[in-house]
Amino acid sequence: MLFTSDNWAGVHPTIMDALNKANSGAMPAYGGDQLTKRVGDRFSELFEHECSVFFVTTGGAANSLALSQFVPPYGGIFCHEISHIQMDEVGTPEMYTGGAKLLTLAGDDGKLTVAALEQALGFYFPETTHHVKPKAVSLTQGTEAGTVYTVADVTALTNVAKQYDLKVHMDGARFSNAVAHLGCAPADITWRAGVDVLSFGATKNGALAAEAIVFFEPAQTKDFAWRHKRSGHVWSKNRFMAAQWDAFLADDLWLKLAGDANAMATRLANGLSQIDGCEVAYVTQINEIFATFPHGVAEALLGSGAQFYDWVYPGDKWQGRLKRFVTSYITTPQEVDMFLLKTKELCTE
Amino acid sequence: MLFTSDNWAGVHPTIMDALNKANSGAMPAYGGDQLTKRVGDRFSELFEHECSVFFVTTGGAANSLALSQFVPPYGGIFCHEISHIQMDEVGTPEMYTGGAKLLTLAGDDGKLTVAALEQALGFYFPETTHHVKPKAVSLTQGTEAGTVYTVADVTALTNVAKQYDLKVHMDGARFSNAVAHLGCAPADITWRAGVDVLSFGATKNGALAAEAIVFFEPAQTKDFAWRHKRSGHVWSKNRFMAAQWDAFLADDLWLKLAGDANAMATRLANGLSQIDGCEVAYVTQINEIFATFPHGVAEALLGSGAQFYDWVYPGDKWQGRLKRFVTSYITTPQEVDMFLLKTKELCTE
Amino acid sequence: MLFTSDNWAGVHPTIMDALNKANSGAMPAYGGDQLTKRVGDRFSELFEHECSVFFVTTGGAANSLALSQFVPPYGGIFCHEISHIQMDEVGTPEMYTGGAKLLTLAGDDGKLTVAALEQALGFYFPETTHHVKPKAVSLTQGTEAGTVYTVADVTALTNVAKQYDLKVHMDGARFSNAVAHLGCAPADITWRAGVDVLSFGATKNGALAAEAIVFFEPAQTKDFAWRHKRSGHVWSKNRFMAAQWDAFLADDLWLKLAGDANAMATRLANGLSQIDGCEVAYVTQINEIFATFPHGVAEALLGSGAQFYDWVYPGDKWQGRLKRFVTSYITTPQEVDMFLLKTKELCTE
Amino acid sequence: MLFTSDNWAGVHPTIMDALNKANSGAMPAYGGDQLTKRVGDRFSELFEHECSVFFVTTGGAANSLALSQFVPPYGGIFCHEISHIQMDEVGTPEMYTGGAKLLTLAGDDGKLTVAALEQALGFYFPETTHHVKPKAVSLTQGTEAGTVYTVADVTALTNVAKQYDLKVHMDGARFSNAVAHLGCAPADITWRAGVDVLSFGATKNGALAAEAIVFFEPAQTKDFAWRHKRSGHVWSKNRFMAAQWDAFLADDLWLKLAGDANAMATRLANGLSQIDGCEVAYVTQINEIFATFPHGVAEALLGSGAQFYDWVYPGDKWQGRLKRFVTSYITTPQEVDMFLLKTKELCTE
Repeated sequence: MLFTSDNWAGVHPTIMDALNKANSGAMPAYGGDQLTKRVGDRFSELFEHECSVFFVTTGGAANSLALSQFVPPYGGIFCHEISHIQMDEVGTPEMYTGGAKLLTLAGDDGKLTVAALEQALGFYFPETTHHVKPKAVSLTQGTEAGTVYTVADVTALTNVAKQYDLKVHMDGARFSNAVAHLGCAPADITWRAGVDVLSFGATKNGALAAEAIVFFEPAQTKDFAWRHKRSGHVWSKNRFMAAQWDAFLADDLWLKLAGDANAMATRLANGLSQIDGCEVAYVTQINEIFATFPHGVAEALLGSGAQFYDWVYPGDKWQGRLKRFVTSYITTPQEVDMFLLKTKELCTE
Repeated sequence: MLFTSDNWAGVHPTIMDALNKANSGAMPAYGGDQLTKRVGDRFSELFEHECSVFFVTTGGAANSLALSQFVPPYGGIFCHEISHIQMDEVGTPEMYTGGAKLLTLAGDDGKLTVAALEQALGFYFPETTHHVKPKAVSLTQGTEAGTVYTVADVTALTNVAKQYDLKVHMDGARFSNAVAHLGCAPADITWRAGVDVLSFGATKNGALAAEAIVFFEPAQTKDFAWRHKRSGHVWSKNRFMAAQWDAFLADDLWLKLAGDANAMATRLANGLSQIDGCEVAYVTQINEIFATFPHGVAEALLGSGAQFYDWVYPGDKWQGRLKRFVTSYITTPQEVDMFLLKTKELCTE
Repeated sequence: MLFTSDNWAGVHPTIMDALNKANSGAMPAYGGDQLTKRVGDRFSELFEHECSVFFVTTGGAANSLALSQFVPPYGGIFCHEISHIQMDEVGTPEMYTGGAKLLTLAGDDGKLTVAALEQALGFYFPETTHHVKPKAVSLTQGTEAGTVYTVADVTALTNVAKQYDLKVHMDGARFSNAVAHLGCAPADITWRAGVDVLSFGATKNGALAAEAIVFFEPAQTKDFAWRHKRSGHVWSKNRFMAAQWDAFLADDLWLKLAGDANAMATRLANGLSQIDGCEVAYVTQINEIFATFPHGVAEALLGSGAQFYDWVYPGDKWQGRLKRFVTSYITTPQEVDMFLLKTKELCTE
Repeated sequence: MLFTSDNWAGVHPTIMDALNKANSGAMPAYGGDQLTKRVGDRFSELFEHECSVFFVTTGGAANSLALSQFVPPYGGIFCHEISHIQMDEVGTPEMYTGGAKLLTLAGDDGKLTVAALEQALGFYFPETTHHVKPKAVSLTQGTEAGTVYTVADVTALTNVAKQYDLKVHMDGARFSNAVAHLGCAPADITWRAGVDVLSFGATKNGALAAEAIVFFEPAQTKDFAWRHKRSGHVWSKNRFMAAQWDAFLADDLWLKLAGDANAMATRLANGLSQIDGCEVAYVTQINEIFATFPHGVAEALLGSGAQFYDWVYPGDKWQGRLKRFVTSYITTPQEVDMFLLKTKELCTE
């Protein structure tokens, strides 16, 4: 009954095999190896477009470096008020951009809205040097609230962004889960929908430590290799980074693992919503669900061996009563069902 | 009928005289002159406490450098959501701190409240490396809404801050106006009330370009001289900075000029509040007043030669209908009365 | 016998008059005034080219902000090993560029040479992400050694720079003195010779606190206004900055004052070079001269009321024996002659 | 005949086994796992002292983060002119410190000398705000020239550093090789010799991607966890970082691998020094050797399948003729001997 985080899962066996296989003899360092080259091609195939791909170890680094390419120190980045870049990255975007400002917007279900974005733009334009210069919008796909932007949602937001000459970044720490939910082509929800750069995460979905920054217009990435190297995030033995991606993207493993995790979250959400006294907070579209429980039940569940976290943020309307459950490719129907059974018992006592 | 900004006024004749007098022969550069030494003593006398004083040209530099002494790049600064450091300094605090994060709080009348501060601290403590580490609270005295914190207000906030080991910064771009309103000793509203560092502004109140960063515990300013020099804000011919302060602080000129400006704002607020259809938005305590007018009246006033600005910020409840009026030591009762007369005419047409 | 620094002189009476005259009534803030507009035109006339001009208070800020426009955080700046940006600005360039690297080059007489620049470029090109990416060359005109680059010198260096797509910055803290020495048009030694941006200093040559960043291709300065504002260097009462420049540039005052200072330095150098035991270190082309004295003489001169500084830098071949003498528009032939007389006496004792 | 870089070797089988074993079921993320705890203890045992250990992916990140703990943005870091932090990290130290300045010193064999350090300190002290404030010395152990500081060398340098209140950082990307050469306890060459923080590298010596920042005074690392997280270098699945170190440090694997690599370099150096026309440039103490060859020989060796790099730096006295050879734990005596044979043939043709 482990629902703490998808980061608690280990490395998927297929990916671990790939790491073992990559460990054969000497190979050129810093990405000069054949595996790195092959993986670059995989990305271009997957996204049906020429891509510039750069690898880093964590999602925080991926988001922040990606943004630093488009946002100067005096720039502003529109993002959701509960986005990971705003709430959970301890100023990494500020470090890599040299002090750019995150401009937070409210929005239901963890999603930015065109209305909120336009209202904010109405304040920042016409531009004045008394305010930061808006340069980017950052979307999280799937969101911190476990929801997903549709292709239409993304397109509507990027259309506004383009009118104001803003670049669009997608924080895809759980991009796999979002695509698995949408059933669309990766291209449809990224560059075809107006996204300029994607932080594509594999770590939460079965990799060891593997995040990719994917630019869809290579011309926009002039000099980015220097930003990348300067962050200290370029692996000297890059074949082991490439091997993870090679296995992750092969045979749609990424989609399968994400789909499995999503299914477990849906199973959990459906179950909880049928238990009196439990309330599921957002629509469950990826591998995260959020719920409230009758008084004492959450504590009793934790006491009985279930593992999950409180979900609190400044000004949240549940005032700390919300609990977060994250599933992953290792979550089994059995442990979901056992959790639901236990919850039902506690709620009907 | 000039109510655009106190920055539009020139240099007060007494201060201009001081500049002319300071221009006599050669003097040591970089603050080695006698005038600089004398002015240092003036600050210590005024605040009844040993002070470390550093001069800069603008309020943005003063606020940001002051904060950088206490807030590391991974730190957080609590401030009001409409504070100058958040809204009007285009990321200067982020630059000088190396990317620290401003953590905005709501509060009526432009003032931070103990309740909002404590609620936010409840989120950030116990600390975790997933969030920035709170390091400071920044108060604006007088506020951007033209209001003033009482000694009790400041003390209550600094008491909370001290419990969490946060330093307290006071943005005193209009400190003169606040003290003139309060009628207290400068010490009472600063170090005696728990303030660690004050940005004391003279420019808006009659100086040419003169802002002071005043630390009340010299031991806390070890190495600050390097931060200061590195910003490019240390005047080589510092006697001309010192001369402004010398004249500004002598014979309570600073208080007299601020009191005059305050009186004109009060006159304007009182007058407007008696005109049907006009509403004054906050209590007028310093030299800024904010008001709404019946449809078309503001435009007509601008057409008739009055000068003032819209006052808009993201999410403001007046949705752009609020106008800001700033008085200064050059504002005359005649121009206030003429404006009121004109307004009354327009409102009764 | 004051030869410490040109920063010890006060404000030239003509410039002080201009400040007094600018203090007439209210004017728009932040450069919206007529004086600022007029001064902008003056620059374009002086340089026979459309210019984008931004004002700051110190030379350190001017150099560093100018460089930050062209040099990203991962960039490198070639400069002389004793340049002001390297030795005397306590990391201001590093702050404003977000951590770019100064790549120092040796060169006689404080001047960069084509040979040294080409050798260094041979190391950095072809480029690799293991090294910073060269982005600019910074020349000091006149140099820290009191020497001047000829038009041919500058052109030769900028030709190399252009081949490698490097921008060229000129640190002109003593640009006036260099132009007075060369007798050329300001355009000849700047944009016509391939310079992209000039830090033009007035403070050392009679202003109160006035430095200008002059870009010669306005298209290259897109967004620079945000960098400028964010530094905290934009005067709200900018008319007093503009007034200094207005008077400084009118009737060639800047050239006259610089020429006077230069003449005094030449008089001093000529005199010293005729005294047995004294050696003048570099050719004296602007208002700085450097000399060594027989044992005990420098100390005796200081004891007799002369004021000047040691001139030391890491690895200097005089091992601390060099003394620096700076003249300014207030230096008189009488004090130079008195100093020479005194020196002669001491050397022949 | 592969002598390009120790980064070309794969992961040592023992370490790969450890990674596979660590992949068993779910474990707490972000270092909450038991393996991370055990590895922390291993460091304290190895260094015979309580240590604070933080893991990152690359040596550049390790060096730069370590320095950022002790060096403020206005600080200076003394280092060798060919040190990795100066030459090969594309400004990573500048980024993480917020723009501190590397103050380079010359020294034979890639080693800092007391004389050069003291001379530089004589320039920077007494301190002035016109210069950066010296805050740290960074030593590389073993050096970029393949040499090693003795315990006496390190102690002499740290004694000078302590007199000036400078912290001492040791770049130990090849610390294993240095300790294997010295045969001393790790404590003897680090904290007992006055070192405050060590960047301890495992990647070049058989790990996948594993570098540790080891502080010897935990009290000095207050808040460092925030710097660490903010860099984006904290692995969520940290057990896989810990597993590498666990295997690396167990049964002195780190020393054995380093010793093997060192022996191969010595074999190569000894062989080359006996071939007429070949010259070995520095004393070979770790796993790097540098040599010059008769005209055409290096090219012929490359043509015959040997792999190695040119070794060039600005102003190097060999003017580009030096070749670098790096051995690793996978280098065999056979390939060394084959290379020597080939070289001999070519030199005697």
